[in-house]
Amino acid sequence: MNLTDLIFKTRSYRRFDESYHIDTKTLETLIDLARLSASGANRQPLKYLVYNTPEDCERIFPSIAWAGYLTEWPGPDKGERPSGYIIILGDKSITEVFGVDHGIAAQSIMLGTSEIGLGGCMIASIMREELRNELKIPDKFDILLILALGRPVEKVIIDDIKNDDVKYWRDSEKNHHVPKRSLEELIIKL
Amino acid sequence: MNLTDLIFKTRSYRRFDESYHIDTKTLETLIDLARLSASGANRQPLKYLVYNTPEDCERIFPSIAWAGYLTEWPGPDKGERPSGYIIILGDKSITEVFGVDHGIAAQSIMLGTSEIGLGGCMIASIMREELRNELKIPDKFDILLILALGRPVEKVIIDDIKNDDVKYWRDSEKNHHVPKRSLEELIIKL
Repeated sequence: MNLTDLIFKTRSYRRFDESYHIDTKTLETLIDLARLSASGANRQPLKYLVYNTPEDCERIFPSIAWAGYLTEWPGPDKGERPSGYIIILGDKSITEVFGVDHGIAAQSIMLGTSEIGLGGCMIASIMREELRNELKIPDKFDILLILALGRPVEKVIIDDIKNDDVKYWRDSEKNHHVPKRSLEELIIKL
Repeated sequence: MNLTDLIFKTRSYRRFDESYHIDTKTLETLIDLARLSASGANRQPLKYLVYNTPEDCERIFPSIAWAGYLTEWPGPDKGERPSGYIIILGDKSITEVFGVDHGIAAQSIMLGTSEIGLGGCMIASIMREELRNELKIPDKFDILLILALGRPVEKVIIDDIKNDDVKYWRDSEKNHHVPKRSLEELIIKL
Protein backbone atom coordinates (compact mmCIF):
# COMPACT_ATOMS: atom_id res chain seq x y z
CA MET A 1 0.00 0.00 0.00
CA ASN A 2 1.41 3.45 -0.77
CA LEU A 3 1.80 5.98 2.02
CA THR A 4 -1.12 8.17 0.95
CA ASP A 5 -3.52 5.23 1.16
CA LEU A 6 -1.98 4.11 4.43
CA ILE A 7 -2.37 7.54 6.01
CA PHE A 8 -5.92 7.80 4.69
CA LYS A 9 -6.69 4.46 6.34
CA THR A 10 -5.05 5.47 9.64
CA ARG A 11 -8.07 7.01 11.36
CA SER A 12 -8.65 7.23 15.11
CA TYR A 13 -10.78 4.17 15.89
CA ARG A 14 -12.53 3.77 19.22
CA ARG A 15 -14.73 0.68 18.74
CA PHE A 16 -13.17 -2.74 18.19
CA ASP A 17 -13.86 -6.46 18.01
CA GLU A 18 -12.67 -7.15 21.53
CA SER A 19 -12.49 -10.91 20.89
CA TYR A 20 -9.62 -10.38 18.46
CA HIS A 21 -6.29 -11.16 20.13
CA ILE A 22 -3.20 -9.11 19.22
CA ASP A 23 -0.12 -11.18 19.93
CA THR A 24 2.91 -9.87 21.75
CA LYS A 25 5.23 -10.31 18.77
CA THR A 26 2.98 -8.03 16.67
CA LEU A 27 3.09 -5.32 19.31
CA GLU A 28 6.86 -5.59 19.57
CA THR A 29 7.23 -5.35 15.79
CA LEU A 30 5.19 -2.14 15.88
CA ILE A 31 7.45 -0.70 18.57
CA ASP A 32 10.44 -1.51 16.37
CA LEU A 33 9.02 0.98 13.84
CA ALA A 34 9.10 3.63 16.56
CA ARG A 35 12.62 2.59 17.56
CA LEU A 36 13.85 3.33 14.03
CA SER A 37 12.11 6.71 13.84
CA ALA A 38 13.64 10.11 14.55
CA SER A 39 14.35 11.27 18.11
CA GLY A 40 15.40 14.76 19.23
CA ALA A 41 19.21 14.87 19.54
CA ASN A 42 18.99 11.08 19.07
CA ARG A 43 18.45 10.74 22.83
CA GLN A 44 15.84 7.98 22.42
CA PRO A 45 14.27 8.56 25.84
CA LEU A 46 11.02 6.69 25.15
CA LYS A 47 10.19 3.37 26.79
CA TYR A 48 7.21 1.15 26.05
CA LEU A 49 4.79 -1.02 27.99
CA VAL A 50 2.83 -3.67 26.14
CA TYR A 51 -0.45 -5.30 27.25
CA ASN A 52 -2.66 -7.76 25.38
CA THR A 53 -4.51 -9.99 27.83
CA PRO A 54 -8.18 -9.37 28.69
CA GLU A 55 -7.21 -9.00 32.34
CA ASP A 56 -4.55 -6.36 31.68
CA CYS A 57 -6.76 -4.50 29.19
CA GLU A 58 -9.43 -4.29 31.87
CA ARG A 59 -6.92 -2.71 34.25
CA ILE A 60 -6.00 0.03 31.77
CA PHE A 61 -9.41 0.88 30.33
CA PRO A 62 -10.77 2.92 33.33
CA SER A 63 -7.81 5.35 33.16
CA ILE A 64 -8.71 6.56 29.67
CA ALA A 65 -10.93 9.53 28.84
CA TRP A 66 -12.68 8.62 25.60
CA ALA A 67 -13.74 10.97 22.79
CA GLY A 68 -14.18 14.33 24.51
CA TYR A 69 -16.68 15.66 21.98
CA LEU A 70 -19.06 12.71 22.32
CA THR A 71 -20.30 13.88 25.69
CA GLU A 72 -23.02 11.24 25.98
CA TRP A 73 -20.69 8.37 25.14
CA PRO A 74 -18.61 7.06 28.07
CA GLY A 75 -16.38 5.00 25.78
CA PRO A 76 -16.66 1.62 24.07
CA ASP A 77 -18.99 -0.98 25.58
CA LYS A 78 -17.78 -4.37 26.68
CA GLY A 79 -17.15 -6.40 23.54
CA GLU A 80 -15.98 -3.31 21.63
CA ARG A 81 -13.00 -2.36 23.76
CA PRO A 82 -9.35 -2.39 22.67
CA SER A 83 -7.62 -5.75 22.83
CA GLY A 84 -4.13 -4.33 23.16
CA TYR A 85 -2.35 -1.29 24.51
CA ILE A 86 1.06 0.24 24.01
CA ILE A 87 1.86 2.82 26.68
CA ILE A 88 4.60 5.28 25.76
CA LEU A 89 6.69 6.45 28.69
CA GLY A 90 9.37 9.13 28.92
CA ASP A 91 12.44 7.96 30.81
CA LYS A 92 13.44 10.93 32.97
CA SER A 93 16.79 9.32 33.77
CA ILE A 94 17.71 10.07 30.12
CA THR A 95 16.13 13.53 29.74
CA GLU A 96 13.31 15.61 31.16
CA VAL A 97 12.52 16.96 27.68
CA PHE A 98 10.68 14.63 25.33
CA GLY A 99 9.80 17.22 22.69
CA VAL A 100 7.65 15.56 20.04
CA ASP A 101 9.44 12.20 20.15
CA HIS A 102 6.25 10.46 21.27
CA GLY A 103 4.26 12.04 18.43
CA ILE A 104 6.77 10.75 15.89
CA ALA A 105 6.84 7.31 17.54
CA ALA A 106 3.06 7.09 17.84
CA GLN A 107 2.56 7.96 14.18
CA SER A 108 5.00 5.24 13.10
CA ILE A 109 3.19 2.71 15.28
CA MET A 110 -0.30 3.71 14.14
CA LEU A 111 0.72 3.52 10.48
CA GLY A 112 2.14 0.06 11.14
CA THR A 113 -1.11 -0.90 12.82
CA SER A 114 -3.08 0.07 9.71
CA GLU A 115 -0.74 -1.81 7.43
CA ILE A 116 -1.66 -5.09 9.15
CA GLY A 117 -5.39 -4.36 9.12
CA LEU A 118 -5.68 -3.18 12.70
CA GLY A 119 -6.36 0.28 14.07
CA GLY A 120 -6.52 2.36 17.18
CA CYS A 121 -6.35 5.69 18.83
CA MET A 122 -3.61 7.84 20.35
CA ILE A 123 -4.82 8.98 23.75
CA ALA A 124 -3.26 11.77 25.80
CA SER A 125 -6.30 12.27 28.05
CA ILE A 126 -5.23 9.86 30.76
CA MET A 127 -5.91 9.63 34.48
CA ARG A 128 -2.21 9.35 35.05
CA GLU A 129 -2.05 8.77 38.77
CA GLU A 130 -4.69 6.02 38.66
CA LEU A 131 -2.83 4.35 35.82
CA ARG A 132 0.53 4.70 37.56
CA ASN A 133 -0.87 3.08 40.70
CA GLU A 134 -2.69 0.32 38.85
CA LEU A 135 0.30 -0.72 36.75
CA LYS A 136 2.95 0.23 39.32
CA ILE A 137 4.79 2.50 36.91
CA PRO A 138 7.91 3.88 38.64
CA ASP A 139 8.16 7.64 39.15
CA LYS A 140 11.20 7.86 36.86
CA PHE A 141 8.83 7.49 33.91
CA ASP A 142 6.43 10.13 32.63
CA ILE A 143 3.25 8.65 31.15
CA LEU A 144 3.15 10.31 27.73
CA LEU A 145 0.60 8.54 25.54
CA ILE A 146 -1.59 5.46 25.43
CA LEU A 147 -2.12 3.75 22.10
CA ALA A 148 -5.36 1.77 22.31
CA LEU A 149 -5.33 -0.93 19.63
CA GLY A 150 -7.60 -3.53 18.14
CA ARG A 151 -9.54 -4.66 15.09
CA PRO A 152 -11.85 -1.71 14.33
CA VAL A 153 -15.57 -2.29 13.90
CA GLU A 154 -16.49 1.30 13.09
CA LYS A 155 -16.35 3.34 9.94
CA VAL A 156 -14.63 6.71 10.12
CA ILE A 157 -15.53 9.27 7.48
CA ILE A 158 -13.51 12.40 6.71
CA ASP A 159 -15.70 15.43 5.99
CA ASP A 160 -14.81 18.92 4.83
CA ILE A 161 -14.90 21.29 7.76
CA LYS A 162 -17.90 23.64 8.05
CA ASN A 163 -18.07 26.87 10.06
CA ASP A 164 -14.68 26.12 11.60
CA ASP A 165 -16.30 23.37 13.70
CA VAL A 166 -13.67 20.69 14.45
CA LYS A 167 -15.90 18.50 16.63
CA TYR A 168 -16.23 14.92 15.40
CA TRP A 169 -19.68 13.34 15.64
CA ARG A 170 -21.60 10.09 15.12
CA ASP A 171 -24.40 9.62 12.64
CA SER A 172 -27.45 7.40 13.17
CA GLU A 173 -25.54 4.39 11.81
CA LYS A 174 -22.79 4.97 14.37
CA ASN A 175 -20.36 6.07 11.67
CA HIS A 176 -17.79 8.44 13.10
CA HIS A 177 -17.40 11.71 11.14
CA VAL A 178 -14.23 13.81 11.37
CA PRO A 179 -14.18 17.32 9.84
CA LYS A 180 -10.79 18.16 8.36
CA ARG A 181 -9.54 21.61 7.40
CA SER A 182 -8.66 22.09 3.74
CA LEU A 183 -5.11 22.17 2.43
CA GLU A 184 -5.74 25.76 1.33
CA GLU A 185 -6.44 26.73 4.93
CA LEU A 186 -3.28 25.05 6.21
CA ILE A 187 -0.71 26.44 3.78
CA ILE A 188 -0.27 30.12 4.46
CA LYS A 189 1.40 32.77 2.34
CA LEU A 190 3.24 35.65 3.96
CA MET B 1 7.51 -0.10 -0.44
CA ASN B 2 6.27 -1.53 2.84
CA LEU B 3 6.29 0.63 5.95
CA THR B 4 9.25 -1.10 7.62
CA ASP B 5 11.46 -0.38 4.59
CA LEU B 6 10.12 3.15 4.36
CA ILE B 7 10.87 3.88 8.02
CA PHE B 8 14.30 2.31 7.67
CA LYS B 9 14.99 4.62 4.73
CA THR B 10 13.71 7.70 6.59
CA ARG B 11 16.95 8.83 8.20
CA SER B 12 17.86 12.39 9.19
CA TYR B 13 19.82 13.69 6.23
CA ARG B 14 21.83 16.91 6.43
CA ARG B 15 23.76 17.00 3.12
CA PHE B 16 21.94 17.35 -0.18
CA ASP B 17 22.36 17.95 -3.88
CA GLU B 18 21.42 21.62 -3.68
CA SER B 19 20.95 21.87 -7.46
CA TYR B 20 17.91 19.59 -7.22
CA HIS B 21 14.69 21.60 -7.34
CA ILE B 22 11.67 20.45 -5.30
CA ASP B 23 8.55 21.81 -6.90
CA THR B 24 5.76 23.49 -4.96
CA LYS B 25 3.18 20.86 -5.86
CA THR B 26 5.40 18.15 -4.31
CA LEU B 27 5.70 20.09 -1.06
CA GLU B 28 1.94 20.66 -0.97
CA THR B 29 1.28 16.96 -1.53
CA LEU B 30 3.53 16.19 1.44
CA ILE B 31 1.60 18.62 3.62
CA ASP B 32 -1.61 16.87 2.60
CA LEU B 33 -0.23 13.75 4.33
CA ALA B 34 0.09 15.79 7.52
CA ARG B 35 -3.40 17.23 7.04
CA LEU B 36 -4.88 13.72 7.06
CA SER B 37 -2.93 12.64 10.17
CA ALA B 38 -4.16 12.67 13.75
CA SER B 39 -4.49 15.91 15.71
CA GLY B 40 -5.21 16.28 19.43
CA ALA B 41 -8.97 16.80 19.95
CA ASN B 42 -9.04 17.19 16.14
CA ARG B 43 -8.21 20.89 16.61
CA GLN B 44 -5.82 20.94 13.61
CA PRO B 45 -3.94 24.03 14.78
CA LEU B 46 -0.88 23.57 12.55
CA LYS B 47 -0.15 25.86 9.64
CA TYR B 48 2.59 25.46 7.06
CA LEU B 49 5.02 27.67 5.18
CA VAL B 50 6.64 26.36 2.02
CA TYR B 51 9.90 27.57 0.43
CA ASN B 52 11.76 26.17 -2.56
CA THR B 53 13.65 28.94 -4.36
CA PRO B 54 17.42 29.38 -3.87
CA GLU B 55 16.78 32.91 -2.62
CA ASP B 56 14.27 31.84 0.03
CA CYS B 57 16.38 28.86 1.10
CA GLU B 58 19.28 31.24 1.66
CA ARG B 59 17.09 33.36 3.93
CA ILE B 60 16.15 30.40 6.12
CA PHE B 61 19.46 28.56 6.35
CA PRO B 62 21.19 30.91 8.87
CA SER B 63 18.41 30.41 11.44
CA ILE B 64 19.09 26.70 11.78
CA ALA B 65 21.45 25.06 14.29
CA TRP B 66 22.85 22.00 12.54
CA ALA B 67 23.81 18.66 14.11
CA GLY B 68 24.62 19.52 17.71
CA TYR B 69 26.98 16.59 18.23
CA LEU B 70 29.18 17.45 15.23
CA THR B 71 30.77 20.36 17.02
CA GLU B 72 33.32 21.08 14.29
CA TRP B 73 30.75 21.07 11.51
CA PRO B 74 28.85 24.34 11.08
CA GLY B 75 26.30 22.75 8.74
CA PRO B 76 26.19 21.84 5.06
CA ASP B 77 28.46 23.74 2.67
CA LYS B 78 27.14 25.67 -0.27
CA GLY B 79 26.12 23.11 -2.88
CA GLU B 80 24.99 20.64 -0.22
CA ARG B 81 22.28 22.68 1.42
CA PRO B 82 18.54 21.86 1.47
CA SER B 83 16.60 22.91 -1.62
CA GLY B 84 13.27 23.13 0.14
CA TYR B 85 11.81 23.88 3.54
CA ILE B 86 8.49 23.27 5.19
CA ILE B 87 8.07 25.33 8.36
CA ILE B 88 5.44 24.04 10.79
CA LEU B 89 3.69 26.77 12.75
CA GLY B 90 1.24 26.57 15.63
CA ASP B 91 -1.74 28.86 15.18
CA LYS B 92 -2.35 30.37 18.62
CA SER B 93 -5.71 31.74 17.52
CA ILE B 94 -6.89 28.08 17.51
CA THR B 95 -5.12 26.82 20.66
CA GLU B 96 -2.05 27.52 22.75
CA VAL B 97 -1.47 23.79 23.24
CA PHE B 98 -0.01 21.92 20.29
CA GLY B 99 0.83 18.69 22.13
CA VAL B 100 2.62 16.36 19.75
CA ASP B 101 0.64 17.34 16.68
CA HIS B 102 3.78 18.62 14.95
CA GLY B 103 5.62 15.37 15.69
CA ILE B 104 2.83 13.36 14.09
CA ALA B 105 2.67 15.75 11.12
CA ALA B 106 6.44 15.84 10.66
CA GLN B 107 6.69 12.05 10.65
CA SER B 108 3.99 11.79 7.97
CA ILE B 109 5.80 14.36 5.85
CA MET B 110 9.24 12.79 6.27
CA LEU B 111 7.91 9.34 5.35
CA GLY B 112 6.33 10.88 2.27
CA THR B 113 9.62 12.52 1.42
CA SER B 114 11.39 9.14 1.53
CA GLU B 115 8.75 7.50 -0.61
CA ILE B 116 9.58 9.86 -3.49
CA GLY B 117 13.34 9.42 -3.11
CA LEU B 118 14.00 12.61 -1.20
CA GLY B 119 15.03 13.11 2.41
CA GLY B 120 15.59 15.65 5.10
CA CYS B 121 15.79 16.50 8.72
CA MET B 122 13.32 17.67 11.38
CA ILE B 123 14.88 20.63 13.14
CA ALA B 124 13.69 22.11 16.43
CA SER B 125 16.93 23.97 17.16
CA ILE B 126 15.95 27.21 15.51
CA MET B 127 16.92 30.83 16.06
CA ARG B 128 13.27 31.69 16.23
CA GLU B 129 13.40 35.45 16.51
CA GLU B 130 15.83 35.79 13.59
CA LEU B 131 13.62 33.54 11.48
CA ARG B 132 10.46 35.36 12.51
CA ASN B 133 12.00 38.69 11.52
CA GLU B 134 13.47 37.43 8.25
CA LEU B 135 10.23 35.79 7.04
CA LYS B 136 7.89 38.27 8.75
CA ILE B 137 6.01 35.52 10.57
CA PRO B 138 3.15 37.11 12.56
CA ASP B 139 3.20 36.75 16.36
CA LYS B 140 0.00 34.72 16.33
CA PHE B 141 2.07 31.76 15.10
CA ASP B 142 4.54 29.76 17.18
CA ILE B 143 7.46 28.43 15.14
CA LEU B 144 7.39 24.72 15.99
CA LEU B 145 9.62 22.83 13.55
CA ILE B 146 11.59 23.28 10.37
CA LEU B 147 11.71 20.40 7.92
CA ALA B 148 14.83 20.82 5.76
CA LEU B 149 14.39 18.85 2.55
CA GLY B 150 16.33 17.84 -0.50
CA ARG B 151 17.95 15.02 -2.43
CA PRO B 152 20.37 13.44 0.08
CA VAL B 153 24.01 12.91 -0.90
CA GLU B 154 25.09 11.25 2.32
CA LYS B 155 24.82 7.73 3.62
CA VAL B 156 23.35 7.25 7.08
CA ILE B 157 24.20 4.03 8.91
CA ILE B 158 22.34 2.71 11.95
CA ASP B 159 24.65 1.18 14.54
CA ASP B 160 23.92 -0.69 17.75
CA ILE B 161 24.41 1.61 20.70
CA LYS B 162 27.57 1.14 22.79
CA ASN B 163 28.12 2.36 26.37
CA ASP B 164 24.83 4.25 26.26
CA ASP B 165 26.43 6.82 23.92
CA VAL B 166 23.70 8.34 21.71
CA LYS B 167 25.96 10.79 19.86
CA TYR B 168 25.94 10.39 16.09
CA TRP B 169 29.28 10.75 14.33
CA ARG B 170 30.93 10.86 10.89
CA ASP B 171 33.48 8.38 9.64
CA SER B 172 36.42 9.19 7.36
CA GLU B 173 34.21 8.68 4.28
CA LYS B 174 31.72 11.22 5.65
CA ASN B 175 29.15 8.50 6.33
CA HIS B 176 26.87 9.53 9.16
CA HIS B 177 26.54 6.91 11.94
CA VAL B 178 23.55 6.87 14.29
CA PRO B 179 23.60 4.59 17.37
CA LYS B 180 20.16 3.18 18.15
CA ARG B 181 19.06 1.54 21.37
CA SER B 182 17.90 -2.07 21.10
CA LEU B 183 14.26 -3.12 21.20
CA GLU B 184 15.03 -5.06 24.39
CA GLU B 185 16.10 -1.82 26.06
CA LEU B 186 12.95 0.03 24.98
CA ILE B 187 10.28 -2.48 26.01
CA ILE B 188 10.16 -2.64 29.77
CA LYS B 189 8.49 -5.19 32.01
CA LEU B 190 7.00 -4.13 35.31
